[in-house]
Amino acid sequence: MSNIRLVEAKLPTGFRFHPRDEELVCDYLMRKVALTDTFQLMIEVDLNKCEPWDIPETARVNSKEWYFYSQRDRKYATGLRTNRATTSGYWKATGKDKAVHSKGTIVGMRKTLVFYHGRAPSGTKSDWVMHEFRLQPTFSVSTFKG
Amino acid sequence: MSNIRLVEAKLPTGFRFHPRDEELVCDYLMRKVALTDTFQLMIEVDLNKCEPWDIPETARVNSKEWYFYSQRDRKYATGLRTNRATTSGYWKATGKDKAVHSKGTIVGMRKTLVFYHGRAPSGTKSDWVMHEFRLQPTFSVSTFKG
Repeated sequence: MSNIRLVEAKLPTGFRFHPRDEELVCDYLMRKVALTDTFQLMIEVDLNKCEPWDIPETARVNSKEWYFYSQRDRKYATGLRTNRATTSGYWKATGKDKAVHSKGTIVGMRKTLVFYHGRAPSGTKSDWVMHEFRLQPTFSVSTFKG
Repeated sequence: MSNIRLVEAKLPTGFRFHPRDEELVCDYLMRKVALTDTFQLMIEVDLNKCEPWDIPETARVNSKEWYFYSQRDRKYATGLRTNRATTSGYWKATGKDKAVHSKGTIVGMRKTLVFYHGRAPSGTKSDWVMHEFRLQPTFSVSTFKG
């Protein structure tokens, strides 16, 4: 059972994990990156090694919802494209990425992906949908040499 | 602050009161009727005396969501029609009632109502929407005389 469900099991009826996009980005993702994720409610899943139907039980929250962290695997060592293939298919982005706001600032982006069986571009669309949240750095570090 | 929000305030980010229709009927409404609502998460609101914008702060859950119990006021002592008027307007049902299921049985009904300013039938529609859950008795008591 996931730690999320362990927390839910102790709560009165009707209380459940139902995070807003902003909370996933500003709390869970930022804490994970800052290594201050003390709750450890979510596990890490390697999406290249894991088919959608094999995502571990410890990530499951409701009957048809899973929450987990994942690291993006680069398709090419020198590029920025993400490898989203599994053994039996691949995740393909759909629609436009959506900005996640907090206090009037864009703090992250939400990408929606659909799982296709087979190999791109001739795969067969499935009913599996994933929302992927990534941080949107508001500040960048610059160096300057005179 | 409502008792629901007091519970939420103690929980990790992302956990909130987000009940399913079935939970509202089978847990909260049935317990209320059976006088076993030990949590007392929700207050009672008299919808004839309370305008939508005056619903007490102690019923508020999120910024735009309120959860509360109410008793239906009969329009006529001998009839079954409900008086849904306030001082400044009235609640009017919209659409068809929806059955609420639990384990394959209909346990309740959900009615959706919209608030109109003024007097029926010439009121002006507002943005206030209410979902009203009522129990649907599955068993009835019968007496038999030989």
